[in-house]
Amino acid sequence: MTVYDDMMRHQRETGALAQVAGRLGWDQETVMPQGAGDQRAEEGAAMEAVLHARRTDPRIGAWLDAIDPATLDDEARAQIRHIRRSYDRAMRVPADLATALARLTSRSHQAWARARADDDVASFLPVLSEIVALKREEGAALAAGGDPYDAMLQDYEPGTSAAQLGAMFDALRPRLVALRQACLERPQPAPLTGRFDAKTQMALSRKLAGVFGYDFSRGRIDKAVHPFSSGSGDDVRITTRTSEIDPFNCAYTTIHEVGHATYEQAIRPAYRFTPLGEGVSMGVHESQSRIYENQLGRSRAFTAWLHGEMTEAFGDLGLDGPEAFYAAVNRLENGFIRTEADEVQYNLHVLLRFDLERALISGDLSVGDLEAAWNDRFAADFGFAVDRPSNGVLQDVHWSAGLFGYFATYTLGNVYAGCLHERLRDAVPDLDAQMAAGDLSAATGWLRGHVQQHGGLFEPREVITRAYGRAPDEGPLLAYLEAKFGALYGL
Amino acid sequence: MTVYDDMMRHQRETGALAQVAGRLGWDQETVMPQGAGDQRAEEGAAMEAVLHARRTDPRIGAWLDAIDPATLDDEARAQIRHIRRSYDRAMRVPADLATALARLTSRSHQAWARARADDDVASFLPVLSEIVALKREEGAALAAGGDPYDAMLQDYEPGTSAAQLGAMFDALRPRLVALRQACLERPQPAPLTGRFDAKTQMALSRKLAGVFGYDFSRGRIDKAVHPFSSGSGDDVRITTRTSEIDPFNCAYTTIHEVGHATYEQAIRPAYRFTPLGEGVSMGVHESQSRIYENQLGRSRAFTAWLHGEMTEAFGDLGLDGPEAFYAAVNRLENGFIRTEADEVQYNLHVLLRFDLERALISGDLSVGDLEAAWNDRFAADFGFAVDRPSNGVLQDVHWSAGLFGYFATYTLGNVYAGCLHERLRDAVPDLDAQMAAGDLSAATGWLRGHVQQHGGLFEPREVITRAYGRAPDEGPLLAYLEAKFGALYGL
Repeated sequence: MTVYDDMMRHQRETGALAQVAGRLGWDQETVMPQGAGDQRAEEGAAMEAVLHARRTDPRIGAWLDAIDPATLDDEARAQIRHIRRSYDRAMRVPADLATALARLTSRSHQAWARARADDDVASFLPVLSEIVALKREEGAALAAGGDPYDAMLQDYEPGTSAAQLGAMFDALRPRLVALRQACLERPQPAPLTGRFDAKTQMALSRKLAGVFGYDFSRGRIDKAVHPFSSGSGDDVRITTRTSEIDPFNCAYTTIHEVGHATYEQAIRPAYRFTPLGEGVSMGVHESQSRIYENQLGRSRAFTAWLHGEMTEAFGDLGLDGPEAFYAAVNRLENGFIRTEADEVQYNLHVLLRFDLERALISGDLSVGDLEAAWNDRFAADFGFAVDRPSNGVLQDVHWSAGLFGYFATYTLGNVYAGCLHERLRDAVPDLDAQMAAGDLSAATGWLRGHVQQHGGLFEPREVITRAYGRAPDEGPLLAYLEAKFGALYGL
Repeated sequence: MTVYDDMMRHQRETGALAQVAGRLGWDQETVMPQGAGDQRAEEGAAMEAVLHARRTDPRIGAWLDAIDPATLDDEARAQIRHIRRSYDRAMRVPADLATALARLTSRSHQAWARARADDDVASFLPVLSEIVALKREEGAALAAGGDPYDAMLQDYEPGTSAAQLGAMFDALRPRLVALRQACLERPQPAPLTGRFDAKTQMALSRKLAGVFGYDFSRGRIDKAVHPFSSGSGDDVRITTRTSEIDPFNCAYTTIHEVGHATYEQAIRPAYRFTPLGEGVSMGVHESQSRIYENQLGRSRAFTAWLHGEMTEAFGDLGLDGPEAFYAAVNRLENGFIRTEADEVQYNLHVLLRFDLERALISGDLSVGDLEAAWNDRFAADFGFAVDRPSNGVLQDVHWSAGLFGYFATYTLGNVYAGCLHERLRDAVPDLDAQMAAGDLSAATGWLRGHVQQHGGLFEPREVITRAYGRAPDEGPLLAYLEAKFGALYGL
């Protein structure tokens, strides 16, 4: 056994335990008895303590020091890169601070949930102030002299910076605001109306998952209030939800989660339980879920096929054929809530949060001024006023959980999806004909080969650059959105 | 923090992790994707490694040495007793031997499954010889000069001995053989025939679980090929199965598992995650599942109520009223398989295995002579010949898993159930009237108060002795079986 082998054995065991902890999370959201919550919290904490001890094991530092990367192949060097990053991160945060943050975010989640339910911002602000203060402290520790917010971004998107994201996002914002406004000034297409049986929605969900390449022998679909995908390798489970009045929610939630899940299922089996054995970043993960859901799933070609499937499943949908169905799938609506937003408006929600949280961490914005800043920005970009905090600054769970740096990856994923979609169209010239026949295999196969199989082998930006052929930029996403919605709304 | 507090904190974390490992087992048997088996094996092994390291942590020895039990209350002394036993056990088995056994039993399970499928004893005997050899070595290490088989029994029923069990079992055997023979010589009651909808069976299963006191807010029922109960405290799940032609299987499997599960649910919440927070032994556990299933669930009074429920659920059952239904529930049949046996014959299957495995471990019986010994004993007790190994020596998984000492607890549980039932009848004089109305609350409440709530507080035999009023013996079980089946078969 070499030193590298010793280290990788430790990593694989840690990786296996992390899968167990993840499975516990799945259990909690899908099948756990309602009265088991307190006990489960202790079980989860015990698992976290085990994982934390393994991730900060001083042997890791000694192993890393003893290994000469020049003697290793590309895969092993990539493993080292991940292990070094994770170990350095753990070492830089003082144990007291980590404990204080864990305690605070467990308490603050409840404070946030209560504040949102009561539309009471004031009750949440003192807690949020504590969170921001501790996160700034953590960010400074992680940055080791660099920029704290940049350091936070590394937890979700290694290799990126606020300046890089900010430049992209600043280029997106005016054109998205203009596109949104132009669409909403036009006559709106008819929405889907009616009642739709939940069991039939779940049957369609299973069919869609199969069409998008989900391997049911290594996964399963259940329902959850807040759908998610969980697990890696041979046990990757997805969840979805049904709404009696909105079958699109179930269908597109499923396709979105299948994007995440097939990424995990497609990673080379040899990487199992290692740092290479998971999707490489939140942004790249989101690029897969978004391209499945939007560029493919909400395309004119695919919705033509879906229109047939849904008509067969539910009977007459009350829409005038596949074109009206395509318009109903893609119609814009004024709304306050990020998670309910369409392709055009979604990124404006993200950009707002990115700019505000960056200012909170830099100190340019105080927690006391946050609500006003949110409401001003919302009115500027969306053209109407936030009516209450639960539709505004209190709507998302992220900040209450200390997840600063996370939001940006949603839009970065869309930008990446735009790049990948442009190249995919080149690679599969008759993609529309295939999708219109319900055949996604060439598209998902291309993504599997160019992105998914690599897992953590390349840095996030590098895997997109390799697939796209050059450095990613916001151009393809903007061109795609303007062309698609321009045609839909007759701009 | 005292030394005792330090030790208990370690124990509680270990207990929480053990619950996680148990949940992983539940997942595997109920919801795990079929292709996840290999990955899951590694995840389970990683959890076992964590648990093993915690259970053999040398700090436990130091803590135990530093604590003066005289300074502790009864509960703390009971905790120490369990921790000492578990730690000494772990310390006595050399690491090499433990590893060799773990490896062998993982391999031998497959060898056994193949041998049973092919009815090929010869292919399994070499593996079984290795298991017996290693188990004897382990038994000798555990016994530290005492009897190896007695040492093995402690894993399942602390405080018992082969001599004590052997005396009980030798008293049972001739009277059970005679009772069995007398019943089978009489005309047999009509069995239940027909087809029974699986969903209706599961609905009835849920109703029965509730009637027997199962708390659904802290548990759930799913299906599994080999039903089991799993978990402690606030997350205790049961599984059952359905057979289209045998709804009794689902009903009585459910009641049996509810006996196990309510035991775990009833233990004092303060004991959570500690050695006192679980059922105290296999024998006491089985006493609960058996008294729920048999003395209560298969009683004339309760089956009168169940007859009404099943008639309502399935329509006319084709049996001539509640008495014929009671007879059908309790009818004897010749059979080879332990797990399918009725109350009278079940213990004869167990006694056979106890005597044979005891002889295997002592060296009085060689593995090569095992099949012949099995077949001779079976013919002597059951009056007909084993037709093939899968109906004989290969039918049970236990020996392939190295579980020597386990079988005895099945009959010990029945003996304990007999004792508890006798005292319960004194305590609840109108029990039959209550059960005939579908009201089990007094019976299950008595068991909760006298047995279940204590968890591991008392030694197994002590908790039964306290509830029964004197040391347990086989008398009540024999008297109950002879009276019940004597009346049923007009002996």
